[in-house]
Amino acid sequence: MPEFKTEIRVTWVDTDAAGIVHFSNHFRFFERAEEDLLRRIGLSYSLIRSKYGIGIPKVEAHCKYLAPLKHDDIIQVSVLVDDIKEKTFKEEFRAINIAGDILAAEGYIVCVALSIETGRSIPLPLDIVTKLKAFSKS
Amino acid sequence: MPEFKTEIRVTWVDTDAAGIVHFSNHFRFFERAEEDLLRRIGLSYSLIRSKYGIGIPKVEAHCKYLAPLKHDDIIQVSVLVDDIKEKTFKEEFRAINIAGDILAAEGYIVCVALSIETGRSIPLPLDIVTKLKAFSKS
Amino acid sequence: MPEFKTEIRVTWVDTDAAGIVHFSNHFRFFERAEEDLLRRIGLSYSLIRSKYGIGIPKVEAHCKYLAPLKHDDIIQVSVLVDDIKEKTFKEEFRAINIAGDILAAEGYIVCVALSIETGRSIPLPLDIVTKLKAFSKS
Amino acid sequence: MPEFKTEIRVTWVDTDAAGIVHFSNHFRFFERAEEDLLRRIGLSYSLIRSKYGIGIPKVEAHCKYLAPLKHDDIIQVSVLVDDIKEKTFKEEFRAINIAGDILAAEGYIVCVALSIETGRSIPLPLDIVTKLKAFSKS
Repeated sequence: MPEFKTEIRVTWVDTDAAGIVHFSNHFRFFERAEEDLLRRIGLSYSLIRSKYGIGIPKVEAHCKYLAPLKHDDIIQVSVLVDDIKEKTFKEEFRAINIAGDILAAEGYIVCVALSIETGRSIPLPLDIVTKLKAFSKS
Repeated sequence: MPEFKTEIRVTWVDTDAAGIVHFSNHFRFFERAEEDLLRRIGLSYSLIRSKYGIGIPKVEAHCKYLAPLKHDDIIQVSVLVDDIKEKTFKEEFRAINIAGDILAAEGYIVCVALSIETGRSIPLPLDIVTKLKAFSKS
Repeated sequence: MPEFKTEIRVTWVDTDAAGIVHFSNHFRFFERAEEDLLRRIGLSYSLIRSKYGIGIPKVEAHCKYLAPLKHDDIIQVSVLVDDIKEKTFKEEFRAINIAGDILAAEGYIVCVALSIETGRSIPLPLDIVTKLKAFSKS
Repeated sequence: MPEFKTEIRVTWVDTDAAGIVHFSNHFRFFERAEEDLLRRIGLSYSLIRSKYGIGIPKVEAHCKYLAPLKHDDIIQVSVLVDDIKEKTFKEEFRAINIAGDILAAEGYIVCVALSIETGRSIPLPLDIVTKLKAFSKS
């Protein structure tokens, strides 16, 4: 199964006064996993911007919170690229608290290829599509 | 229509190197609107925790990004409480960039009542339900 | 006294698991006060960048934490521009918790004028200097 | 030389619309280095709170920004514990951009031992002092 996996440790600033990770930070964890995945296939936001003249901003994001995360917890975030379309692709995330092997959160993000010059959506460069398929379902 | 509305100005730290608001920060804007709504009906996370012995953490969050937000933009965030169930309630958010009256983002958050003592979900206190209904659909 | 003052409410995401505002967020409060001050004198980071071709990044920042801030606290942040030099200026901040009139934090930030084109420090535009003097000590 | 060193990669959310790391985030990098150091000597904020009944909040923080950091940069943050006093200790930080071996930032943080029960400063537990000395100057 071609999932990409990365580990993230919860730091103090990730938490809030309830003693758990603030719900917005799970999306930051997801994005960090995305950045690690992109780096693994030779890409980065900066490179995508400079080489292809596009950005890949998020057009949709979703998360279900299943178990709270606390300071110093280590999560394994897995990413599976899914639904690669002409101009968009979707990533599915699962964050597992490795202490106890507990699914802490799962969600998805949809990215769109956007021309930096025009600000309009454009087809994903074939090169990026090919690279993303290394971690896609089908 | 019983929507609650609040205004938020985009600050510099909300942006990222693409020159727009980072996607995780829309959830922070949503929560700030939620906090303002709760304050309007005489509640706050702190008061809910101390008076009722419960927290209301998020169990689900979703956002669609429709138009980018930039530094110094002012958004009007409207909240509509929906789907008040025994232990959960849902809030629907719309963030409108007041320059141009453009819908920038829309999403929802689902909160659950959780006993601070046991960490388990419990029925929402009737008092909170009654107050939330001031900004609910039905 | 030519201090500039603005009010900021502590939101949930500003706090950490110790139940107080994370120390890094005081700097964000300081910057938000700086943004409000700039707006008052007809400036903003975006305008400074587009009109004068410069950025004014921070070269130094300092804060003393005197009393903890909690969720929902309202602080009054005052700013005094000081030490306007050829290429830099300094801002002094005081954050007072208006409940109890308690000095919660004080600090300073030093900004430098940087050419966006060359990345090098350059003299502050006279127009900006003149405007900053509205809130300077001398 | 008993410096502690750790590596941190700049992520997308660390940046702002100027394309560089937001100045407040250097303090978060410093704290992450502090957390890594504490973990190395068998401590963590959570353990310090539960085992000793104290927190070690910051009472002072300072940073000089010497060279901008960009997305995907890797910094090596070194920490040296200094000035261990009865109730406080100071940490000195240096963040080096490993591409080019450029000093990007340097600063310090002063922490105080605070009783969680009374909220008052108390002497640092001897055990913590002994452990901190592993990475202190003298």
